[in-house]
Amino acid sequence: MTLPDMVTRHQEAVEAALQSTVQGRQDPLYRMMEYQMGWVDEGGAALTPSLIRAYPALCLGVCEALGGVASTAMSAATAVELLYQFTRVHDDIQDGTPDNGPRPSVWWVWGPAQAINAGDALHVLARLSLFSMGSQGVSTEQVLAATKVMDAASLDLFEGQHQDLQIQNQVTVTQQAYLAMAERRTGSLMGCAAQLGALISGADEAVQERCKEAGRKLGLALHLQHDINEFWGANSTGGPVTIVRKSFPVVYAIETAPVAVKREIGTLFTTRVLDPKDMPRLADLLDGAGARQRSIEATQAAQAEFLSTLEGAGVKPGPLAEFEAFAEYFIQNGLTGA
Amino acid sequence: MTLPDMVTRHQEAVEAALQSTVQGRQDPLYRMMEYQMGWVDEGGAALTPSLIRAYPALCLGVCEALGGVASTAMSAATAVELLYQFTRVHDDIQDGTPDNGPRPSVWWVWGPAQAINAGDALHVLARLSLFSMGSQGVSTEQVLAATKVMDAASLDLFEGQHQDLQIQNQVTVTQQAYLAMAERRTGSLMGCAAQLGALISGADEAVQERCKEAGRKLGLALHLQHDINEFWGANSTGGPVTIVRKSFPVVYAIETAPVAVKREIGTLFTTRVLDPKDMPRLADLLDGAGARQRSIEATQAAQAEFLSTLEGAGVKPGPLAEFEAFAEYFIQNGLTGA
Repeated sequence: MTLPDMVTRHQEAVEAALQSTVQGRQDPLYRMMEYQMGWVDEGGAALTPSLIRAYPALCLGVCEALGGVASTAMSAATAVELLYQFTRVHDDIQDGTPDNGPRPSVWWVWGPAQAINAGDALHVLARLSLFSMGSQGVSTEQVLAATKVMDAASLDLFEGQHQDLQIQNQVTVTQQAYLAMAERRTGSLMGCAAQLGALISGADEAVQERCKEAGRKLGLALHLQHDINEFWGANSTGGPVTIVRKSFPVVYAIETAPVAVKREIGTLFTTRVLDPKDMPRLADLLDGAGARQRSIEATQAAQAEFLSTLEGAGVKPGPLAEFEAFAEYFIQNGLTGA
Repeated sequence: MTLPDMVTRHQEAVEAALQSTVQGRQDPLYRMMEYQMGWVDEGGAALTPSLIRAYPALCLGVCEALGGVASTAMSAATAVELLYQFTRVHDDIQDGTPDNGPRPSVWWVWGPAQAINAGDALHVLARLSLFSMGSQGVSTEQVLAATKVMDAASLDLFEGQHQDLQIQNQVTVTQQAYLAMAERRTGSLMGCAAQLGALISGADEAVQERCKEAGRKLGLALHLQHDINEFWGANSTGGPVTIVRKSFPVVYAIETAPVAVKREIGTLFTTRVLDPKDMPRLADLLDGAGARQRSIEATQAAQAEFLSTLEGAGVKPGPLAEFEAFAEYFIQNGLTGA
């Protein structure tokens, strides 16, 4: 699947802007960040970066679609990417995930203490990046407004993360609660990227708000597709199975399936670490309970809402087709996939 | 020892300002923050807060000493306290410290994943607090300048933390490298508090810079006194001994003591977890190698530099005596002590 135009159009400029935020910083702390960004390997040797950065592409794409100049939104675009990478570093520690895409997680290489620290510093770089807008022809008022947008999105994200961690320890969770959590957890930064693009294009607050909503729905769709892939994706069988999360198909089945099915799902699930051979059985049970179908429908609904909300924000059919290709690409490949 | 005037003068206002940053936020995420701030216990029951907040007191004190109005610096003062508390939450995870003063650490109560998240959110609240200055009669230019000060101090702190973690894994460390790390690790936020106070008072950049340097020296003194207390403080013997850090007395002794002494210190030290009965022996060895005396001298030198640098920034004898009492109090009692 070829990369969407929205990504390719600015990818070199985005990568250069991202690299400039870390370049010139000598402390070894920044080597961990360069690793997280995909620029160097564990030993510090240069890698060819993947250049697929969904958040900057969405931010710049929205800015352009609303009549703005992409280059004025570049610092905001990189700020959201840095914020995303910061949360990835901390997420991997929180979830105990040893891998980040094709390579080991930062905490796996440098230990959790240094990884917490590297994440905290990336968080500051994200904010520094946002502030550098001031030197790119963006007004001080816009810089302050952008900061508010990022602060609100960050808190929303952390609240969603808190909910997710709580949901993993709860016995019953409603679909509604799960969807609300998923939208906050994976939608907050997409919403932030889209809202910042709108803000910098000069759009009014109502349009900015719609763009935020659109981005959040895209995030929700990405979250749900990720949930689906855990059971029915191309790589969902055969590999060593890790701890199973409480994902949407599971939440749906536990809420709606007949008692006997619920009980069997519950028994498989409470072991926490599933035997690889139990995974197909769990997937079949969920499928039989309609959880797969319902998850696909919910993903498609969120994807459709992403587009209809952008249309409501004034995005014209030409650019809208680009957003469609953009959503399609990342829903199929995931945020880290390429 | 009575609380210094610099603390008592504004403590009610500081506490009210801190509470207003969290009040009205309903998500359970904020309950962890209230716990960290000392307002509630694990079960959410209200506590009487200790009201001893060194960072806000220093920020407001510097602002007043340079002719500014304390109330205009209140948001900056609370921002630094929130930043400090954020780093405490993450520090306790990084160091595996189960207690935070008289109560269990956030990670000990809610687990590391939620604690990472709560720290990240406190980090955002600190920045939100700084931004609220704009509604308190501080100019937009000052808000942006204050943000730069906080960003630079934050990165410096994380770089210092990175160095500290590295130092713990290195065999030999020079005194110079240790002192540089200690000043960054414990001095960055003190420097930030003092610099922000100067900035908001309207002082010029040279004065701001001196105040930052003064704050960093106070932080260094606090760090060194903490190191001394581990071996020769009132509570340094008798309790269950935890993992021994590589602190200044140890670094000094390993750099300067005769080979036989070095070897014995090394042997005791490489066990990582000292038996309580070995602690007095290690303390005696260090004392015999002159490490205690050298540590006391270094602490006193840093404390004296704090005051002379403030004097160089234009602080008059009256206020200077207040800063002296302030430094004396926190060096004796520590930042969390009361």
